[in-house]
Amino acid sequence: MNKQELIQLGKNAKKASFQSAGLSTTTKNDILKQFAKAIIDKTDEIIDANQKDLQNPQIESKFIDRLKLDAKRISDMANGLLQLVGLADPTAKIDGGWETEDGLRIVKQRVPLGVVGIIYEARPNVTIDAAGLCFKSGNAVILRGGKESINSNVVLADILRDVLKQNDLDENMIQVIDDPSHELAQAFMELNDYVDVLIPRGSARLIQTVLNNATVPVIETGAGNCHIYVDKDADKQMARNIIINGKVQRPSVCNATEKVLIHKDVADDYLPDIISDLRERGVEVRGDESTRAIVNDVIPATTEDWDTEYNALIISIKVVDSRQAAIDHINEHGTHHSEVIVSNDYAAGVAFQQQVDAACVYVNASSRFTDGFEFGFGAEIGISTQKLHARGPMGLEALTSYKYVINGDGQTRK
Amino acid sequence: MNKQELIQLGKNAKKASFQSAGLSTTTKNDILKQFAKAIIDKTDEIIDANQKDLQNPQIESKFIDRLKLDAKRISDMANGLLQLVGLADPTAKIDGGWETEDGLRIVKQRVPLGVVGIIYEARPNVTIDAAGLCFKSGNAVILRGGKESINSNVVLADILRDVLKQNDLDENMIQVIDDPSHELAQAFMELNDYVDVLIPRGSARLIQTVLNNATVPVIETGAGNCHIYVDKDADKQMARNIIINGKVQRPSVCNATEKVLIHKDVADDYLPDIISDLRERGVEVRGDESTRAIVNDVIPATTEDWDTEYNALIISIKVVDSRQAAIDHINEHGTHHSEVIVSNDYAAGVAFQQQVDAACVYVNASSRFTDGFEFGFGAEIGISTQKLHARGPMGLEALTSYKYVINGDGQTRK
Repeated sequence: MNKQELIQLGKNAKKASFQSAGLSTTTKNDILKQFAKAIIDKTDEIIDANQKDLQNPQIESKFIDRLKLDAKRISDMANGLLQLVGLADPTAKIDGGWETEDGLRIVKQRVPLGVVGIIYEARPNVTIDAAGLCFKSGNAVILRGGKESINSNVVLADILRDVLKQNDLDENMIQVIDDPSHELAQAFMELNDYVDVLIPRGSARLIQTVLNNATVPVIETGAGNCHIYVDKDADKQMARNIIINGKVQRPSVCNATEKVLIHKDVADDYLPDIISDLRERGVEVRGDESTRAIVNDVIPATTEDWDTEYNALIISIKVVDSRQAAIDHINEHGTHHSEVIVSNDYAAGVAFQQQVDAACVYVNASSRFTDGFEFGFGAEIGISTQKLHARGPMGLEALTSYKYVINGDGQTRK
Repeated sequence: MNKQELIQLGKNAKKASFQSAGLSTTTKNDILKQFAKAIIDKTDEIIDANQKDLQNPQIESKFIDRLKLDAKRISDMANGLLQLVGLADPTAKIDGGWETEDGLRIVKQRVPLGVVGIIYEARPNVTIDAAGLCFKSGNAVILRGGKESINSNVVLADILRDVLKQNDLDENMIQVIDDPSHELAQAFMELNDYVDVLIPRGSARLIQTVLNNATVPVIETGAGNCHIYVDKDADKQMARNIIINGKVQRPSVCNATEKVLIHKDVADDYLPDIISDLRERGVEVRGDESTRAIVNDVIPATTEDWDTEYNALIISIKVVDSRQAAIDHINEHGTHHSEVIVSNDYAAGVAFQQQVDAACVYVNASSRFTDGFEFGFGAEIGISTQKLHARGPMGLEALTSYKYVINGDGQTRK
């Protein structure tokens, strides 16, 4: 694929986006069911293409598990599409309206974003997941996956495109960039005339690369250096439960807890139990000097630890002099994702929630709840850590914008 | 100023933004009144600084009118601040909430964006306008104006900063980059750790430069190649009124009408009158071949005309075969700003509003109504032509994001 062909692909997506924006909810749901059936029917074909990807001698071993598709994973992808059927259509929504002094009636109506670009790595399931989310929300999608999964991605997209064609719809609602070169990726990130938003899905490095190189607007997702602050008025057992859950239940994800801050008044009493809880579950515990004065075999935490997202069974603990010190530490070192206070003090909870700058600020609950499904959105595009457009868990509505539809009877401006 | 000092300025803004986010509406309104009074009291000082800018021998003559401040313009700036007092505080708002299956109570609460960066050209009134809007919405602001107005900008910001200091508030809620070098501008556009959003205000060229060079998220404003489509079922007099108003009432602004598309069935009857209306008001009329076949001394429109925002007393007219041809032309050549259909046909109005991809789509009213004040927002940061975050006229709420404030009683994830 050359740059001219990429531009044509962008034009095709923009054209298709006008058709996708006009589809009824019933039609979209019907097509989603056909997508799911087609994927199941073509299981063998998908596995064959996936084998080509897996047999690439240049593939790094760490990619193999992410890359591999089997009947179970293919069935999971189909089920993901069927789940979208049950969700409300985010573009079938009016946000309200009003009449102006001039008698114009203004209605604010949800509309699809238009063309969504997804940049991802070796997981071929993202192809189906992202295509389904974009389709349900009335968008056209351009998928640019990693070179490792190129054969799988092309076959998966072709199956969906065939369904669109069979229904006399524009198959360019779903397109794959089948040439994973860096030059084309860069051109894609600058395709402002045809792409309305880019969503990178994958490692922190991928996201940073897209942020640094795109001129198309980007939704930043994923980084989570999440804290639990144990206040002096915290219930000890509740604090222990929330810390264990935040760190251990699924340590590899962005809403896992990476740090514990604890008020000095309860550190002596609480820390020995908290640390044994963690160690019993295989967590490596690091701590500041005060923590090590209480439990002396804790590994010293370095300056770098306070800014590190481990995504692993490691935690760092710091004793703080006050609630304000905890808030200040979080605002300096956090990634604005999910932050927790454990406290039975009303004022402490309110102050923490108001002053901590994060998408989700919890009193007395685990950071692990920051998730589109747990929030009840029924789907998740990602968790935004920026403040523009969408913040925190993003459901289908994050793939929409709005337009003002205005009705007059000949008004002109004075 | 060097790059290290700029980073320090960013840190100072971020720190101040935590204080500004916590100010009560009453306090903010009181300070806005003090800002207005201080500007009036310091009129002479402002004019002196402005004279320094005006006496710069390198100043281009076209900048002089935009740059010049006199007692009237200073009083207008003060009145702009007083108007903000009467507007609702956009951060004193809860967008709703719900309880999850796990019994977590989630509340979606409006919060300031944090630190807003404004990049503008030679108009020193933007300094006061932007500082006031950001302050009312609880944000800290970093102002980077053009070199032409540097003395005026610094004095204006200093007056506001003095008021903050006198009230024991952090004066770094409002800061000016007093060194207008390109290197610092570039570093500012990459200050992702401290700046939450950049809003360029000024020419299309300025906006494009910021879009191309910023890694901080940008809100794109301003470009308006707005169309009026005269349907075959249009009321002739209404069409004439709306075209005159759209083109002539204030031709230099982005919501002015730049193009007329007219259905072939009414072109013979309507165009001679429409064209004389425009010519009587000094408008240069260009047209496609069909238009020139009807009024033969119309200047031929070139391909380039269809994509040009004139911002002047020029208009191009095209005869179209159908409503769909008009919609397709607008979606290809428009800038997604404001588009108008004049028609008494119900289906035509609905189809136009649903299919045209623009922030504001009017039936039977002038494009000139696309404006924060006309919409009843009471203030305007700009008119967004992108789809992320905010679209169309942006009031104070466009300077806010949200956070989820979540209350539990010990919930952990299963």
